[in-house]
Amino acid sequence: MEQRVSLITLGVPDMEKSAEFYEALGWKRADSPDGVIAFDLISQTLGLYPLAALAEEIGLPIGALGTGAVTLSHNTRSKAEVAQLLAAAERAGADVLKPAQDVFWGGHHGYFRSPDGHIWEIAFNPFSPLDGNGAFRWNGY
Amino acid sequence: MEQRVSLITLGVPDMEKSAEFYEALGWKRADSPDGVIAFDLISQTLGLYPLAALAEEIGLPIGALGTGAVTLSHNTRSKAEVAQLLAAAERAGADVLKPAQDVFWGGHHGYFRSPDGHIWEIAFNPFSPLDGNGAFRWNGY
Repeated sequence: MEQRVSLITLGVPDMEKSAEFYEALGWKRADSPDGVIAFDLISQTLGLYPLAALAEEIGLPIGALGTGAVTLSHNTRSKAEVAQLLAAAERAGADVLKPAQDVFWGGHHGYFRSPDGHIWEIAFNPFSPLDGNGAFRWNGY
Repeated sequence: MEQRVSLITLGVPDMEKSAEFYEALGWKRADSPDGVIAFDLISQTLGLYPLAALAEEIGLPIGALGTGAVTLSHNTRSKAEVAQLLAAAERAGADVLKPAQDVFWGGHHGYFRSPDGHIWEIAFNPFSPLDGNGAFRWNGY
């Protein structure tokens, strides 16, 4: 199995409401057929999909599908961007779970929960800077 | 907010056990300090992190952290690879939730649950082929 994640799917109760949250943060939808809303990321895609349909597709009861044990981190190009993006997420309807703060390993981060319950970290890692294209490779810090 | 996910974190109860699952599938660990196990993906990193520590970091009770509403899809280069990778995951200790099968939209896929409870899709999408580097861009099918 090669080392890649091609598609991250977020099961959500209300597709349009969730899409509007990401659009409020400046993301652009890709062309999508009915039933999926997709956002192109770097070499992968993030898809919104109805939670009930996802449960049926996986074959697990909808009540068994939870969030939080998978978190998605968006790394920034500067420390100041962390507080800025958390504030933007809050304005778009997210709950800030942890305000921007320095972390013991030398970075700076915070967490928000999107209106549909998914958990995002906004992080600045001075030891593993993004390249010009936004690509990330963790340098072990 | 630019469109990228830099780090995907999977909260897991037993770090080494989870790492061994991915290693059994052929993945190689990046150099990691104590407390994190990282795998380099394309322009991003997948990190294993203790579920209890993740709960503390987010500020939610550990019992609130669930799986399944976020799924990770690994797309393949061929249809045959789907069944092969599901079988490899099963040998490594995963439960196959859905065996390899054609999908209504014209692709071929299946799902497994890793030993720590995370849900992976293995998918072949003939309309959105991977490029030589394994990069994926969804073409709307």
